[in-house]
Amino acid sequence: MAGSTFGKNFRVTTWGESHGAALGAVIDGCPSGLRLSEEDIQAFLDRRKPGTSAVTTSRKEDDKVEILSGVFENMTEGTPISLMIRNTSQRSSDYSHLMNCYRPGHADMGYDAKYGFRDYRGGGRSSGRETAARVAAGAVAIKILEELGISVHAVTSSIGDINLNIDTITDEMVLTSLSNTVVMPDSTAAAEAEKLIKKYREEKDSIGGSVFCEVTGLPAGIGEPVFDKLDATISHALFSIGAVKAVEIGDGISASLKRGSENNDAMRARGKNIEFKSNHAGGILGGLTSGAPIRIKAYFKPTPSIYQTQKTVSSFDGRIKNTELTIEGRHDPVIVPRAVVVVECMTALTILDALMDNTTSKLAYLKRIYER
Amino acid sequence: MAGSTFGKNFRVTTWGESHGAALGAVIDGCPSGLRLSEEDIQAFLDRRKPGTSAVTTSRKEDDKVEILSGVFENMTEGTPISLMIRNTSQRSSDYSHLMNCYRPGHADMGYDAKYGFRDYRGGGRSSGRETAARVAAGAVAIKILEELGISVHAVTSSIGDINLNIDTITDEMVLTSLSNTVVMPDSTAAAEAEKLIKKYREEKDSIGGSVFCEVTGLPAGIGEPVFDKLDATISHALFSIGAVKAVEIGDGISASLKRGSENNDAMRARGKNIEFKSNHAGGILGGLTSGAPIRIKAYFKPTPSIYQTQKTVSSFDGRIKNTELTIEGRHDPVIVPRAVVVVECMTALTILDALMDNTTSKLAYLKRIYER
Amino acid sequence: MAGSTFGKNFRVTTWGESHGAALGAVIDGCPSGLRLSEEDIQAFLDRRKPGTSAVTTSRKEDDKVEILSGVFENMTEGTPISLMIRNTSQRSSDYSHLMNCYRPGHADMGYDAKYGFRDYRGGGRSSGRETAARVAAGAVAIKILEELGISVHAVTSSIGDINLNIDTITDEMVLTSLSNTVVMPDSTAAAEAEKLIKKYREEKDSIGGSVFCEVTGLPAGIGEPVFDKLDATISHALFSIGAVKAVEIGDGISASLKRGSENNDAMRARGKNIEFKSNHAGGILGGLTSGAPIRIKAYFKPTPSIYQTQKTVSSFDGRIKNTELTIEGRHDPVIVPRAVVVVECMTALTILDALMDNTTSKLAYLKRIYER
Amino acid sequence: MAGSTFGKNFRVTTWGESHGAALGAVIDGCPSGLRLSEEDIQAFLDRRKPGTSAVTTSRKEDDKVEILSGVFENMTEGTPISLMIRNTSQRSSDYSHLMNCYRPGHADMGYDAKYGFRDYRGGGRSSGRETAARVAAGAVAIKILEELGISVHAVTSSIGDINLNIDTITDEMVLTSLSNTVVMPDSTAAAEAEKLIKKYREEKDSIGGSVFCEVTGLPAGIGEPVFDKLDATISHALFSIGAVKAVEIGDGISASLKRGSENNDAMRARGKNIEFKSNHAGGILGGLTSGAPIRIKAYFKPTPSIYQTQKTVSSFDGRIKNTELTIEGRHDPVIVPRAVVVVECMTALTILDALMDNTTSKLAYLKRIYER
Repeated sequence: MAGSTFGKNFRVTTWGESHGAALGAVIDGCPSGLRLSEEDIQAFLDRRKPGTSAVTTSRKEDDKVEILSGVFENMTEGTPISLMIRNTSQRSSDYSHLMNCYRPGHADMGYDAKYGFRDYRGGGRSSGRETAARVAAGAVAIKILEELGISVHAVTSSIGDINLNIDTITDEMVLTSLSNTVVMPDSTAAAEAEKLIKKYREEKDSIGGSVFCEVTGLPAGIGEPVFDKLDATISHALFSIGAVKAVEIGDGISASLKRGSENNDAMRARGKNIEFKSNHAGGILGGLTSGAPIRIKAYFKPTPSIYQTQKTVSSFDGRIKNTELTIEGRHDPVIVPRAVVVVECMTALTILDALMDNTTSKLAYLKRIYER
Repeated sequence: MAGSTFGKNFRVTTWGESHGAALGAVIDGCPSGLRLSEEDIQAFLDRRKPGTSAVTTSRKEDDKVEILSGVFENMTEGTPISLMIRNTSQRSSDYSHLMNCYRPGHADMGYDAKYGFRDYRGGGRSSGRETAARVAAGAVAIKILEELGISVHAVTSSIGDINLNIDTITDEMVLTSLSNTVVMPDSTAAAEAEKLIKKYREEKDSIGGSVFCEVTGLPAGIGEPVFDKLDATISHALFSIGAVKAVEIGDGISASLKRGSENNDAMRARGKNIEFKSNHAGGILGGLTSGAPIRIKAYFKPTPSIYQTQKTVSSFDGRIKNTELTIEGRHDPVIVPRAVVVVECMTALTILDALMDNTTSKLAYLKRIYER
Repeated sequence: MAGSTFGKNFRVTTWGESHGAALGAVIDGCPSGLRLSEEDIQAFLDRRKPGTSAVTTSRKEDDKVEILSGVFENMTEGTPISLMIRNTSQRSSDYSHLMNCYRPGHADMGYDAKYGFRDYRGGGRSSGRETAARVAAGAVAIKILEELGISVHAVTSSIGDINLNIDTITDEMVLTSLSNTVVMPDSTAAAEAEKLIKKYREEKDSIGGSVFCEVTGLPAGIGEPVFDKLDATISHALFSIGAVKAVEIGDGISASLKRGSENNDAMRARGKNIEFKSNHAGGILGGLTSGAPIRIKAYFKPTPSIYQTQKTVSSFDGRIKNTELTIEGRHDPVIVPRAVVVVECMTALTILDALMDNTTSKLAYLKRIYER
Repeated sequence: MAGSTFGKNFRVTTWGESHGAALGAVIDGCPSGLRLSEEDIQAFLDRRKPGTSAVTTSRKEDDKVEILSGVFENMTEGTPISLMIRNTSQRSSDYSHLMNCYRPGHADMGYDAKYGFRDYRGGGRSSGRETAARVAAGAVAIKILEELGISVHAVTSSIGDINLNIDTITDEMVLTSLSNTVVMPDSTAAAEAEKLIKKYREEKDSIGGSVFCEVTGLPAGIGEPVFDKLDATISHALFSIGAVKAVEIGDGISASLKRGSENNDAMRARGKNIEFKSNHAGGILGGLTSGAPIRIKAYFKPTPSIYQTQKTVSSFDGRIKNTELTIEGRHDPVIVPRAVVVVECMTALTILDALMDNTTSKLAYLKRIYER
């Protein structure tokens, strides 16, 4: 149960420490018959890559993905797809001073408590670098969703207090977001955000923000009732990204301030379909999709690695001592822009898994597949 | 995978429709050797029971629990504990006018899409009544946590805009919350909230709010890295409660507005232990407990069942038609006070499951159990 | 993981001790749209019922099933189906002399070691009575398989050394087997077997035997590669029945004595289909169905409860002492005839689960379900 | 659910086709604090390696394992252990004539039916080569079991009709088995078996056999009741090995021929322990360990790849045609000797997983771990 597997049908198992030989993902349960190449995956990894602008760490990571199994003649076989990314730019020496010391805001201390032992090289398994493996797997999920007419898009919705009140994502917004370093769908706000981040970096500090994600093209009725409601599994997926501290579906917190008569989304007939007059619910009612777009927001804390000296403790041979710590190495002053594609991928993995779960909800579906 | 099972080690499967013969829970994986009686469980069910005040529905539900298996001579046997609650007060006739009509803000339409078929009696499986089974199971989890020195408490933190800025729960607050109908830990606010709810009820409307929950006494290092981070599984648990639209851990959304230097919780040595100088993280770092109290907030939308006439559609024989709907029956103008114990129970189930997961994290733990 | 749940898609959780209030099964994942009534299930339970002949125990158990949820207007809803059977004929006093004593050939001692605690009333959870719950759930699986054109039949293939060399089951054989008390598809052998069983009963002893099971109508390609091969999951299912000590697929042990040139089943074209010229493999190749009938044999040990005095130990307050035990109560001199329907049901549950797993093996299947 | 993951606590996911770039295993849930090096694993892989004698295929596979993650300074970290074996000796051209043709006795046809697509290179995922990944993971499990005082040993018990009636394995038998090419614990029988195999090879044919496996040092009470009985999970594990057609626990089939009074294993006190006077049950009663050694036998069919011309069909563009096939390439005339270590590893994985499951069976265990 050790937590490195996500999904029940499209099962992704990730592995790898930030400073080990490599990291990777194994996808078990990818359907056969999907065209897939390394380029398809690389395009997503490149969106997560650091070192590409002033707002990210100056570490260079190539993040070249290799497909080791499960694809034959550019087609998925139905067997496990093993994806590997070699670690090339990790300098373990950067971290030797952290050997006995717990970095504030990091998982160091919890790992030591849990395992009686710690990989002090850059966070090891708890490093944000682990999300590269998720993105590699998520790229495959997104490709399958596209085949089914479903699209998943995310953008930066806020950096600190520079907040865009986004409630949908147009194609144009996607394009704009890909044209600036903070992945914001508004160029003016993006320029301000870049300035703000630089200010924080100069002050040896960091800042947080939020990511908005939208899923369109989903049929109604997807999700499982009770414990595996679609909003529950999506929030599980998003909170599993290191720095997330809050998740909202639809109107989120503001729904708790509204009257029922305001918050309920009225339905109207539109030919054979149902149209919602509003989408306060964010596309999910009672844990199942309504057919309206899914709207989610994930909020990220500021990067815990900052260049200021911080008060913390060291633990050695069972003794806890006060100490002061100055973190070196190369860090992002804000994690949000690089997290956008991670949010997209985790959402896609969740949605695809739910669609696959749903293939057995009706006897009619079984008959549709097995009738001869 | 149909979603009615929660947990991996302490596995709870619930069953039952709001207007069927009964509902219940089966717990598989409850350790042997726990003293347990029906009274232990009943005390928690009574906190969820409706019809006890002006702020809840006037429906009377006895909610008497029966233990059908797994307990012998008042001791858990280690075998599945089957808990059943007979439905006694359900009037199915209340719902016959809903047969072809989708209630706004409800799961009716999603269920129809998913199953091609719908139990129109009061929401069937999607009814809030299903949470009675969760509370019965959660009561057992809380009893085990108590044996391990861990406590879980929840209170109403807001009703509409009457918002208590709670960040911890004292024993006194627990007592106060149990003494008023809105389960608020502050008598003045509670009185205001009661007034507000009555106003909404008179206006044939409803309102939302939030629940704050705190867990104390947990060791550090609990939770699984990567996909099953403790905050991810807690948020999964909370979003699985019908009306939840947002979840925050620790400072939540406001963490996204802070600097790293503010948000990081400094550590200091205190004898053999580590003390945190603040708890912005809400007791979880990198998905693992830090040893500081866990702090969570869940936000609930207003009850979707209101007495005003609403615009919606009916679906019959494949045709979608516009219609107007006036919901009758007996409904809560606010769900929050009755949801407090559900939040407590879902949190407890999650925490216990994580503690059980963690028993194999170290080779030393295996040796501790099997050394002869 | 405590072992009372079977299946991943059509998930059955059973609960109940032999001498508790009731026992039951919860099915989560049954597709919606199946006609289902209590009579459908009762017919299977009646085949397992004891007290109907001289070859079974004289205990009377009514084994009346109640459907508590998941069925509305005689149609499955897609939600959990809760099935309950009240215990009516259990006399706990029969077992009080066993309180500190381990019955040879039973799980008593293992349960005490595992749980530090034991339900000495007739084996508690380890009693064969638990299989009633499996049969109730299996009856639902068989109904779904029938809708898909798949049938599962089992018969007694041997009692002691009275061995029918069965390798297929005709409709006539099914009828014959249902007409005698030992469920053998051959009346002469059945008469001999009845005589043999009576002899063993008179000698205060017991005997074992085997059950042959055949599945027809399955498409090719069902099962999951590698760890969840269909033969692996079927044998898992069959070994989970208390007294099973061996499982063979197809030619089983005798395959290990053959040459490859004998054992390989030649294929020939028959119109658009493939026909096998033999079926040594028993319908499964590389863990996937070949389209030929599945053929399985499960071997049962003799009933461990016998009326002779046996050497064993008692355990009290941590001290182990030698003792002699004479088991009273009412027991079957052979378990096989009542186990036939259990084998049928466990096989059906496994097959259905595999069919449901397979609905996501191809991208084309997903498209078939979700194309609009 | 696609079948490439084994275990619930010590979870092994394997990946890789026989003729792809590599194959591997990811272990999630390996406890921290175990000394582990590539040499530890290589020793087991070398026992499975082909090309080492006249009784195996002449293919050379280096099967060098690389540890890519989860081990830091020669100690397991508690994080996923990724193991990779590069494919170096595969000649895909050997298989091009099989492109549209189904090999008798192989999974080719089932894979095509399941995935609508087939990796015709040497069986792809269904190749026996996949077991290399299992052995790599199993080696880690065996190392942990050793730390807990548990040992797992397997030997060849029969080749064709050369049958050793083994019911226990001494240290000397282990040594003897490692000194001959057929892994038999008796040198005379081994010499006969080698002769027999050569004869079959010369006749362009193949033969089957069986493997006996014993586990000693296990505490009583391991295994989960009902569906995950230890014999059920062991047989699942063994039937998941490609060519297995039967599994026996303890006396197996012969138990079905015995009287209860013969088959029950009498217990006697021996100081604080319980001693069994016989072990017909093979160390498992009611699905739980009794403390006596576990004894299992797995029977293997003859290798389906033989050099004789066989009748089969080809499938191209939806048309099935009769054809004759002569398999080339390099194949084992008997699979059993190389399967011995696979049986050992699959048994070890099952046992370790059950031990880990059991850590939460008693409240006392939880207290033992978390008491402070």
